[in-house]
Amino acid sequence: MNDYQFEIQRRATKKEKPAFDQLIFGRNFTDHMFVMDYHADKGWHDGRIVPYEPLQIDPSAMVFHYGQSVFEGLKAYLSEDQEVLMFRPYKNMERLNKSNNRLCIPPIDEELAVQALRQLIAVDRDWVPNVEGTSLYIRPFIISTEPYLGVAPSHQYKFIIIMSPVGAYYKEGINPVKIAVQSEYVRAVKGGTGNAKTGGNYAASLKAQEVAEQEGYSQVLWLDGKENKYVEEVGSMNIFFKINGEVVTPELNGSILEGVTRNSVIELIKDWGIPLSERRISIDEIYEAQKNGTLEEAFGTGTAAVISPVGELFWNNEKLTIGGGQTGEIAGKLYETLTGIQKGKVEDKFGWIVKVDEEKAVTTAI
Amino acid sequence: MNDYQFEIQRRATKKEKPAFDQLIFGRNFTDHMFVMDYHADKGWHDGRIVPYEPLQIDPSAMVFHYGQSVFEGLKAYLSEDQEVLMFRPYKNMERLNKSNNRLCIPPIDEELAVQALRQLIAVDRDWVPNVEGTSLYIRPFIISTEPYLGVAPSHQYKFIIIMSPVGAYYKEGINPVKIAVQSEYVRAVKGGTGNAKTGGNYAASLKAQEVAEQEGYSQVLWLDGKENKYVEEVGSMNIFFKINGEVVTPELNGSILEGVTRNSVIELIKDWGIPLSERRISIDEIYEAQKNGTLEEAFGTGTAAVISPVGELFWNNEKLTIGGGQTGEIAGKLYETLTGIQKGKVEDKFGWIVKVDEEKAVTTAI
Ligand SMILES: Cc1ncc(COP(=O)(O)O)c(C=O)c1O
Ligand SMILES: Cc1ncc(COP(=O)(O)O)c(C=O)c1O
Repeated sequence: MNDYQFEIQRRATKKEKPAFDQLIFGRNFTDHMFVMDYHADKGWHDGRIVPYEPLQIDPSAMVFHYGQSVFEGLKAYLSEDQEVLMFRPYKNMERLNKSNNRLCIPPIDEELAVQALRQLIAVDRDWVPNVEGTSLYIRPFIISTEPYLGVAPSHQYKFIIIMSPVGAYYKEGINPVKIAVQSEYVRAVKGGTGNAKTGGNYAASLKAQEVAEQEGYSQVLWLDGKENKYVEEVGSMNIFFKINGEVVTPELNGSILEGVTRNSVIELIKDWGIPLSERRISIDEIYEAQKNGTLEEAFGTGTAAVISPVGELFWNNEKLTIGGGQTGEIAGKLYETLTGIQKGKVEDKFGWIVKVDEEKAVTTAI
Repeated sequence: MNDYQFEIQRRATKKEKPAFDQLIFGRNFTDHMFVMDYHADKGWHDGRIVPYEPLQIDPSAMVFHYGQSVFEGLKAYLSEDQEVLMFRPYKNMERLNKSNNRLCIPPIDEELAVQALRQLIAVDRDWVPNVEGTSLYIRPFIISTEPYLGVAPSHQYKFIIIMSPVGAYYKEGINPVKIAVQSEYVRAVKGGTGNAKTGGNYAASLKAQEVAEQEGYSQVLWLDGKENKYVEEVGSMNIFFKINGEVVTPELNGSILEGVTRNSVIELIKDWGIPLSERRISIDEIYEAQKNGTLEEAFGTGTAAVISPVGELFWNNEKLTIGGGQTGEIAGKLYETLTGIQKGKVEDKFGWIVKVDEEKAVTTAI
């Protein structure tokens, strides 16, 4: 492992912290952030930890016009031994580079990015919340900053990591959510950017999300863009079903985001010896399964909510109540296991946890 | 017409201007910009003309993460009588509002936006270049600025207009361009955001554009996202063909941008009594037409290049030379007529020109 040295400019006075038992998702940010610049002539350079503050960006910066941006989302948790544990940070940096590739953004050094994160968390360690259900949400992102109004890959970027102490993503907690199946709007299509974590996918999703919420649904389930028939994913989660004893999830077809939670869930389920397949799943098949009594569970997976049981689907004017609107057995067990591993309470047999290791981080930082 | 009053903060010393006979597209910006803020509690407010300078934006601002942004592009020209003429600015503001609607951004007052532009141009009038082939490129855009990491429409926005004196878009001038037909990557699909002018569409296009350029093509011709078969549009232009005496262009199907130049070209061609239809056009049909000798012309239309004859298409490993690689008759006539109207040399019988009317603009400004 390389030792990366980042300059640290500490904030003179710390910000006031929000009450950790009343956190709202994504509203509060820690005292510092990591920033690294890219210039075509110099590559990525000047990684540094600086006070969290507004960015100064030219109004012609390409990100404002041509949307060349990518991001990641992961979490760190405080264990009972007061250690800070990151969940699979290398997976996220690997995915960031896949997104970079699709968006013509130069790749970052994944090891450097994890080390940067480690040092940033060490500096803002007192922001890792210690209340049940809370965590430190971490948002690495890259934006194109070249001041130029031409449609072409930018020659300048910023890689930034900001962090936010968060409570549960859904106000309801692990309770089942209601999800509307979307058939008018499309999120992504094969050949598009669906398997990259880039702003445009989310911008495209807002309209359908707005309609769903007005009708009392918390998220949207997307169907494929070509045939409007196959299940893809939920707003910010991958989706799983249990049908007749087998767990199924849409295969990675190029328009679905490859979730880190999805990947972890697949490993756990296989480890438990439960049959699982990744394949095409039509929305008709789900409604069929419900009708003939073989649809046992449905749940979403994602960093924000971890596991989110689906209690109700709505499609073509037809409501589908799943598992009596209750949390299913597998969803419950996955939630307990994953959050247990994340907080260091359940054995980490897959090697998913990376300790922040405060002492080392602080001493290597200059 | 309402009189809108905007505060004007003039820059203390003017920037040095680039040589107007050596302008590069989108690299130089004028002394001032127009900025207006939106807050859910107040609506759009505080429209003002201020010095062109970096924006201060929170790193958690939604535009950096979820791509909620829209933009426009139009031009103003200096006439032989030294009047500044804008080309169809109301059309652009109307389209901006259509994009806003798709992206869940609150609409702007179109009249206010045109007045703002008028006053901004009046303030920076000495930036309208006076050399043959040059113009003032105008970029209105809206970005979401709420500091919040949740996927939802922002409650805060900025509407900004910046301006750039520009030379010709293509180094080659009105000479025919070579275009590669894209069959791996997809720009937009029905139900997506293709008919909105939003960053994500352009971000999605970069990869294909990069490949095309490496192979010696200046732009990409997109096919539809569902069947990968029907012609949609070029990178930043709509596309027209002349087949067997008839001009054809893809119909507005929801995934194509409704170009202002496209619309103007359609009106001119109809006015000239040339048959025209807007309909689905498969790429096979174009290759067929070429083979049986009925493909007479192909050209792109867009604000940046006005009319851009297409001299060569490349698809499925097959090169297609169109019109002997020369500018066609209709393309040439359209170019002369449109640029003539834009510069006040050809009668504006459709009422497309809006004069900046310097005196009025300056006196209404407080
Ligand atoms: C579109 C989309 N799908 C799936 C996911 C789940 O991915 P992960 O488990 O890595 O959080 C996310 C959220 O991160 C997402 O934004
Ligand atoms: C995707 C796309 N299509 C078409 C056009 C042409 O539109 P207009 O004639 O309004 O410039 C543009 C450029 O503005 C564009 O970006």
